[in-house]
Amino acid sequence: MTRRIAIPLFPGFMPLDLVGPYDVLRFLPDTETVFVAAEPGVIPGADGGFGLQAQAAPADIESCDILLVPGGGGTRDYEARKPLIDWIGRMHETTTWTTSVCTGSLLLGAAGILKDLDATTHWNAVKDLESHGAHYTADRVVRRGKVITAAGVSSGIDMALTLAGLIEGDEFAKAVQLWIEYDPQPPHDTGSVAKAGPELVRRTPELIREGGARRG
Amino acid sequence: MTRRIAIPLFPGFMPLDLVGPYDVLRFLPDTETVFVAAEPGVIPGADGGFGLQAQAAPADIESCDILLVPGGGGTRDYEARKPLIDWIGRMHETTTWTTSVCTGSLLLGAAGILKDLDATTHWNAVKDLESHGAHYTADRVVRRGKVITAAGVSSGIDMALTLAGLIEGDEFAKAVQLWIEYDPQPPHDTGSVAKAGPELVRRTPELIREGGARRG
Repeated sequence: MTRRIAIPLFPGFMPLDLVGPYDVLRFLPDTETVFVAAEPGVIPGADGGFGLQAQAAPADIESCDILLVPGGGGTRDYEARKPLIDWIGRMHETTTWTTSVCTGSLLLGAAGILKDLDATTHWNAVKDLESHGAHYTADRVVRRGKVITAAGVSSGIDMALTLAGLIEGDEFAKAVQLWIEYDPQPPHDTGSVAKAGPELVRRTPELIREGGARRG
Repeated sequence: MTRRIAIPLFPGFMPLDLVGPYDVLRFLPDTETVFVAAEPGVIPGADGGFGLQAQAAPADIESCDILLVPGGGGTRDYEARKPLIDWIGRMHETTTWTTSVCTGSLLLGAAGILKDLDATTHWNAVKDLESHGAHYTADRVVRRGKVITAAGVSSGIDMALTLAGLIEGDEFAKAVQLWIEYDPQPPHDTGSVAKAGPELVRRTPELIREGGARRG
C-alpha cells in the first residue's frame, strides 16, 4: 500500500513551510505526494514569483495518510479557503497523521480540528490560533495524538524529522537528517521570540516589509 | 533598481536546496526572483511529484544580481545541462553574488567558476566537486570573493542568512531569521558526516532509497 501525503496549496502559501517537510517525508518508503488546490494548475506562492503545480482538486482526493497544511498570507481568508477547509476536515477523518506548519494551523483550526487542543503556530499568529479554540503552546513542535503542529516556517523541518522517526524509526530519521545535512549553523541566534528579544520582535514586521513586495 | 535573483531549474532539482534560500532572500528590499529553465514551463523536481514553474529561458535573462544554483539528481548530467551551464557562466560575469547549494556547486564547477577555488557541496559529492578543480572545504558555508557555496540541502538557509546580512546588514538578517523562526531543534544530532559517524554515513544512501522512488 502506497502511503499518500496530501498538501493543500492556495495563493500566497509560504514555500518553505511545505518544502521543508516535503523534502524529509518524501524519503519515507512507498510514499507519494499530491498537491491539492481548489482549482488545479500552477498556484502562486507568497510574493507571486513562485508557482507550484497542484495536480488534484479537493474532490479528487478522498483520503490520505499524512495531511500536511502549510501557512502563508492566504490562510486568514477563510471564505476564499472554504473548499480547502471543508476538505481538510474530511481528510482529518481518514489520516494517520494530521500536521501543519506556521499559519497552516489556522486552517486546521477553521476546520474545527484544534478545538480545546494544545497547538502552535507562527509567533505572529497566536491570537488567530486561539480564536479557533486552540490552546497555544510555545514549543517548536507540538504533538497531541495524531495532530502535530509546528511553529513558524522552518520548524516544519524539525516536525517532519520527528514524524519520520515516529513512522520509520530513529535510524531512518537520522539518515534523512544526514542526507539533507541538517546541521544548522545560522550566523545569528534570533530564531525565536525569546532569543530575539522584544525590540527586534517589534521591529521585524517593518524590517522585512521594506521591499514593498507581498509578504507570506 | 530592482535586485534580480535568478535560479536555474532542471528536472530532478532538490526543492529544499532552492526554497530555503528563496524564502530568506525574497525579503530583501526591491527584489524579484526569476526561475530559468532550458524550456520554460513546469519543471519536475526530485521524485517527480513536485512541479515548479520556470518563467524564463536562458536567452531571456542577460544579467542578474544574485545567481542561486540548486542541486539535485540532475546536476551530474552535464550534457543535458549544457544550456544552463553556458548560461551560468555568462551570468557569473554579471553577478554581484554567485551562489550554490548542495550539488548546485557541480554546475558552477562545470561552468569553470570553481577552478582553484575553495568550495563546498553535499558530503556525497566531494569527488565530483574536485573533478572541476575546486578545493573541497568541509564548512557549511564557504565564501571566496563573490562566490558562496553551501553544503547539502538545508545549508542553503544558513548561506542565505549570511548573504542577507552581507547585503542588508545584521539587523535585517536577524529579523528574517526570526520571521522564519529558524531556531533549529532537530530530534537528533546527525546532520553532518562528523556527527553521524561512519556507520550511519555508510548506511544512509541505502536507508533513504528503500522506497524505490527516484532520489534527488
